[in-house]
Amino acid sequence: MQRFMDENFLLRTETAKQLFAACKDEPIFDWHCHLSPKEIYENKTPADLTALWLAGDHYKWRAMRSIGISENYITGDATAYEKFEAWAGAMPYLIGNPLYHWTHLELQRYFGIYEPLSARTGKEIWDRSKTLIDGGGFEPRSLIEKSNVVCVATTDDPADSLEYHQLLAADKTFKCKVIPAFRPDKAIHIEQPAFAPWLGDLAARVGDPVDSYAALKAALTARMDFFQNMGCRASDQSLGVIPCAEATAAELETIFRKGANGDPLTAHEIAQYQTDILRFLGREYHAHGFAMELHIGALRNNNTAMFRRLGADAGFDSMDDLPTARGLSRLLDALAADGTLPQTILFTLNPIANYMLGSMIGNFQNDDAASKLQFGSAWWFNDNIDGMRAQMQALMNLGVISKFVGMVTDSRSFLSYPRHEYFRRILCALLGDLVENGEYPADLDALAEIVQGVAYRNAKAYFSLDI
Amino acid sequence: MQRFMDENFLLRTETAKQLFAACKDEPIFDWHCHLSPKEIYENKTPADLTALWLAGDHYKWRAMRSIGISENYITGDATAYEKFEAWAGAMPYLIGNPLYHWTHLELQRYFGIYEPLSARTGKEIWDRSKTLIDGGGFEPRSLIEKSNVVCVATTDDPADSLEYHQLLAADKTFKCKVIPAFRPDKAIHIEQPAFAPWLGDLAARVGDPVDSYAALKAALTARMDFFQNMGCRASDQSLGVIPCAEATAAELETIFRKGANGDPLTAHEIAQYQTDILRFLGREYHAHGFAMELHIGALRNNNTAMFRRLGADAGFDSMDDLPTARGLSRLLDALAADGTLPQTILFTLNPIANYMLGSMIGNFQNDDAASKLQFGSAWWFNDNIDGMRAQMQALMNLGVISKFVGMVTDSRSFLSYPRHEYFRRILCALLGDLVENGEYPADLDALAEIVQGVAYRNAKAYFSLDI
Amino acid sequence: MQRFMDENFLLRTETAKQLFAACKDEPIFDWHCHLSPKEIYENKTPADLTALWLAGDHYKWRAMRSIGISENYITGDATAYEKFEAWAGAMPYLIGNPLYHWTHLELQRYFGIYEPLSARTGKEIWDRSKTLIDGGGFEPRSLIEKSNVVCVATTDDPADSLEYHQLLAADKTFKCKVIPAFRPDKAIHIEQPAFAPWLGDLAARVGDPVDSYAALKAALTARMDFFQNMGCRASDQSLGVIPCAEATAAELETIFRKGANGDPLTAHEIAQYQTDILRFLGREYHAHGFAMELHIGALRNNNTAMFRRLGADAGFDSMDDLPTARGLSRLLDALAADGTLPQTILFTLNPIANYMLGSMIGNFQNDDAASKLQFGSAWWFNDNIDGMRAQMQALMNLGVISKFVGMVTDSRSFLSYPRHEYFRRILCALLGDLVENGEYPADLDALAEIVQGVAYRNAKAYFSLDI
Repeated sequence: MQRFMDENFLLRTETAKQLFAACKDEPIFDWHCHLSPKEIYENKTPADLTALWLAGDHYKWRAMRSIGISENYITGDATAYEKFEAWAGAMPYLIGNPLYHWTHLELQRYFGIYEPLSARTGKEIWDRSKTLIDGGGFEPRSLIEKSNVVCVATTDDPADSLEYHQLLAADKTFKCKVIPAFRPDKAIHIEQPAFAPWLGDLAARVGDPVDSYAALKAALTARMDFFQNMGCRASDQSLGVIPCAEATAAELETIFRKGANGDPLTAHEIAQYQTDILRFLGREYHAHGFAMELHIGALRNNNTAMFRRLGADAGFDSMDDLPTARGLSRLLDALAADGTLPQTILFTLNPIANYMLGSMIGNFQNDDAASKLQFGSAWWFNDNIDGMRAQMQALMNLGVISKFVGMVTDSRSFLSYPRHEYFRRILCALLGDLVENGEYPADLDALAEIVQGVAYRNAKAYFSLDI
Repeated sequence: MQRFMDENFLLRTETAKQLFAACKDEPIFDWHCHLSPKEIYENKTPADLTALWLAGDHYKWRAMRSIGISENYITGDATAYEKFEAWAGAMPYLIGNPLYHWTHLELQRYFGIYEPLSARTGKEIWDRSKTLIDGGGFEPRSLIEKSNVVCVATTDDPADSLEYHQLLAADKTFKCKVIPAFRPDKAIHIEQPAFAPWLGDLAARVGDPVDSYAALKAALTARMDFFQNMGCRASDQSLGVIPCAEATAAELETIFRKGANGDPLTAHEIAQYQTDILRFLGREYHAHGFAMELHIGALRNNNTAMFRRLGADAGFDSMDDLPTARGLSRLLDALAADGTLPQTILFTLNPIANYMLGSMIGNFQNDDAASKLQFGSAWWFNDNIDGMRAQMQALMNLGVISKFVGMVTDSRSFLSYPRHEYFRRILCALLGDLVENGEYPADLDALAEIVQGVAYRNAKAYFSLDI
Repeated sequence: MQRFMDENFLLRTETAKQLFAACKDEPIFDWHCHLSPKEIYENKTPADLTALWLAGDHYKWRAMRSIGISENYITGDATAYEKFEAWAGAMPYLIGNPLYHWTHLELQRYFGIYEPLSARTGKEIWDRSKTLIDGGGFEPRSLIEKSNVVCVATTDDPADSLEYHQLLAADKTFKCKVIPAFRPDKAIHIEQPAFAPWLGDLAARVGDPVDSYAALKAALTARMDFFQNMGCRASDQSLGVIPCAEATAAELETIFRKGANGDPLTAHEIAQYQTDILRFLGREYHAHGFAMELHIGALRNNNTAMFRRLGADAGFDSMDDLPTARGLSRLLDALAADGTLPQTILFTLNPIANYMLGSMIGNFQNDDAASKLQFGSAWWFNDNIDGMRAQMQALMNLGVISKFVGMVTDSRSFLSYPRHEYFRRILCALLGDLVENGEYPADLDALAEIVQGVAYRNAKAYFSLDI
């Protein structure tokens, strides 16, 4: 029996241990996350473990609700300690859930605490962690630097001022580079109530009216120019499915006006609009040198009552299951046909699309970059041992894992960097098994190059990160 | 090499053995099955193994047809012994099929026979089993009691009189509780020829005409009241997909009348009707304290020629593959929005929906119950080692397996209780692996609580079973 | 650690080794491939490894593009050695990809070369292989005979003359039987530009005008008669999904005329046409004793720019993801209902359909043949260890793997026969695990019958191969 989460955690074989030794000290380039540049800039000391763990983590909230814990102890009025106590008591039930490992990796790496968290050990762990937090070193920048992160790409609305990115760029005391990523979801989701007011925000930011689809495109391009100057290397868009519905320029202007007025749109009109704006965005990303991340398959805000109470991103999202291969193929082909396909990273929330995406990327590879088209790492609900193995096995079988740009935290928490370690352990275990089974030679030089590449170097090259 | 199906069957590790020891003696609450209350009440002695195994088991029939055995030896005129002989000869070919394990578990547990069944051993096993059966102890009630089953929930049509449930409730000699479950499939499937005649049956049962949609709803509510008095704790509905199509009350009455007259309905009308009646049923289940089981993804009666010859449930069903996340989300949200979402258990026949369902349940959890929304155990075509592991791995990764209500036989056979043992072994092997790999502490108290919960206690609490 | 690809490659257990010993010398019946009968007849000596490996293998081309290698070294003007060098340099990055194993199996079995191919070893391997190739024994017929192949079924258009099949049949020096398979994809895909010109080819071949749908059917039947005389035992058709849309005879004639004129067709018209022609073909296959292979789920020619440059089958295809269970069920049922369902083999390119297909075949089994309906082996993008295990596990759980007709190369390369060895090793490892885990008795006679059946004998019986 292996000891619980010791130094050989997940490393079942000697080869896996050697591979992990070869890549564990690679830096982290967290090229997709939801960290707040404002929080990084302000660098406040957190109050306690509840502030660090439970203030905004909808993964933990869902788990607590699933156990039957009252909302009062989750997002309600209970005290910080009561919420922590509820979480500590929940822990032993989370066998097989990645939260069990994330929580203990965070306790081990940042607090030096190796006891499993439970109702029994909760009080002592609270006290020890509180002393450590109060002693300093748990501010956002400390945690980032302690985690060997050399660059963070946040996720930013086109209408955002990027003022904190500017302040951070000017502050030479913080060694980690913080760059924006362009996330025009509000421009894409014409069907949502936020569309019309957001056009106003965008107009205010660019100083011109955004009163036509042409004006929207011009404003988005202007903001891309600005993001580019701020070091942006990537964009991100989230859709349930990738639509494919042709439209004339006149139709698109009509649809835009309906959306801007808050008038109802048909499913076909939404599809026409999204088809066109995705092609526009892709072309502009190509021109600006931004990679295009497509996060496909989320079905959001399923629980209307809780959405009204807590808003978005509070733990009420799940997986969509509509087919999307044909729409995706048409989008990528439309861009490839006129030579404007940017580097593209395809993520799926529903793992049923793993093999479809893993085969789709092969259609558009060329010598623009090593694996110009990427199958993005296991994301959100798949960010666990089984999910990461499944994504990597699909990628290996269908493409070239050696050129994979690897892990992202996709997180709102400054404590989430051990997920890179978790990923690297899973990667090394997977490749180690191949060697141990005689499926790949025990060529440690070739293997070290591969795991170092996936851990950090491929992403550094792919995004042309200059550090 | 492990010996064939010995006491450590499927228990690869020491931890797995310890966990199985902790849960193997938990009682069985078979909260979803297709046993006949009439057969339980009448308690007849079966004739032989053919009567027990081959008289009604469409799983075995399919396997025999797949080998190329003539229908005469399956559902035809061959003698009981000839049918048994055909089955015995088929056995060695069923490597990797759960029937291979079920058959041998049943021989071991009920007959003390440990030889593998084959053409060579068939005659001797027939003779030994015949002697045992004739000696008594193979009547339905004996088999149920021998299997440590404390409660059976059968599956019953709303128009059923439940007379055998009443007779069984009055008979104090039988220790196992037999309760009905409410299965209004005939009310839901307005598109089927059985709809109109069934309305007549229902009208006869309630003593009022069922000549409008409103009258149908009233009749269903009246039957739920009666089922509730008979101890009913759960309902069940089977659909290929969960539709979502709005309709006015007037439209619904029109659609109902068409269905009642046997007039053709469009796919949209069927969807409108089903959308509404599922919402109605959900609300009433909430009011009656019935859990709502949704069995999604069966494509039934694919072979028209054989349907005409043998009727339904004869081995000619398979998996549907239509997307269903959006319809399911809308159904659950409509109920949650007005506070009438009952405890709900989602089953999928097509395992491609495992991760979608495992993530969907998280949207509607609250403190009404521990895992109020459940992802139901691997069902029918998934009721095998791979299928059960896959369902539990999805559930662990996405939710809280510790609160899982676990296994059901879903069976028509009184010999099928070893499937609970099979499930428990798979569960213990899975959790045991996590401990052995250092992914969970070797905390046997916590682990025993988990496996005892999944084996029996969670279901007892979830359905408020009072025994 | 197992040595890299030694004699026990993939055979983890003693049982697996015994099973492989029992089936490794079975002949090969390659009942579905894309070998050229002309090349077999002409039997030319290949120039070098580049000619053998890189001249037409779009699997390798995709992998090279995924690494970022320039098209010049793939399909362009680079020299044969430069292309080989690019491939050799790519190899170490292909960890976990089946190309890594295929390449080394081919080096081992045909060249006696056991060093892993890489940039470092490329030159030496090129030189050694060149000497061997020049020494003879690498002509198509030598490779086929050396591989113990007793029958090859090529894939042939109905308009093909089959002249090389006739020449080969007349040549008694070649021991391997070469038979055609009937592939009417051009007749099915009325939506493609090739439809109208192909009607002309067909008319020329049959010597009658093909100016109506009725005439097309008559011509196809005439060609089936001819193929039957040439030893044809199987047909093949490739579709993204299986449609189901009814049409009258008059509507079908109208649709046909539009297709023949190159007029645009609606999606519904295409579905109507394909629904009908598939039923027609199925009925005729039944009458001609051809098995019906359905290859479902390919999304072809995704990259228009590269299609214009390189044509079809150049590495720009991927997986479709549309639901297809209902259409498939209706096709098979329509044929079964009038007693004209031929032996049918269902392949899926997207593994999400594994369980759907594995359950679908069970609906139509009878005593016409052992597993009359077959779930075809893992194909194309699934032709790797994980894919083959997944397909076989689905088949075992849902049906009877013992009656499986097993592996096909589906290849254009004369070096691809070690894929049968690869498959047999995976099969033996999978069944060996069951025995070692106590899930099946260590009955080596029964097991040998099973693996010999899957390796060769089941296919020989299924296709009534008379050799």
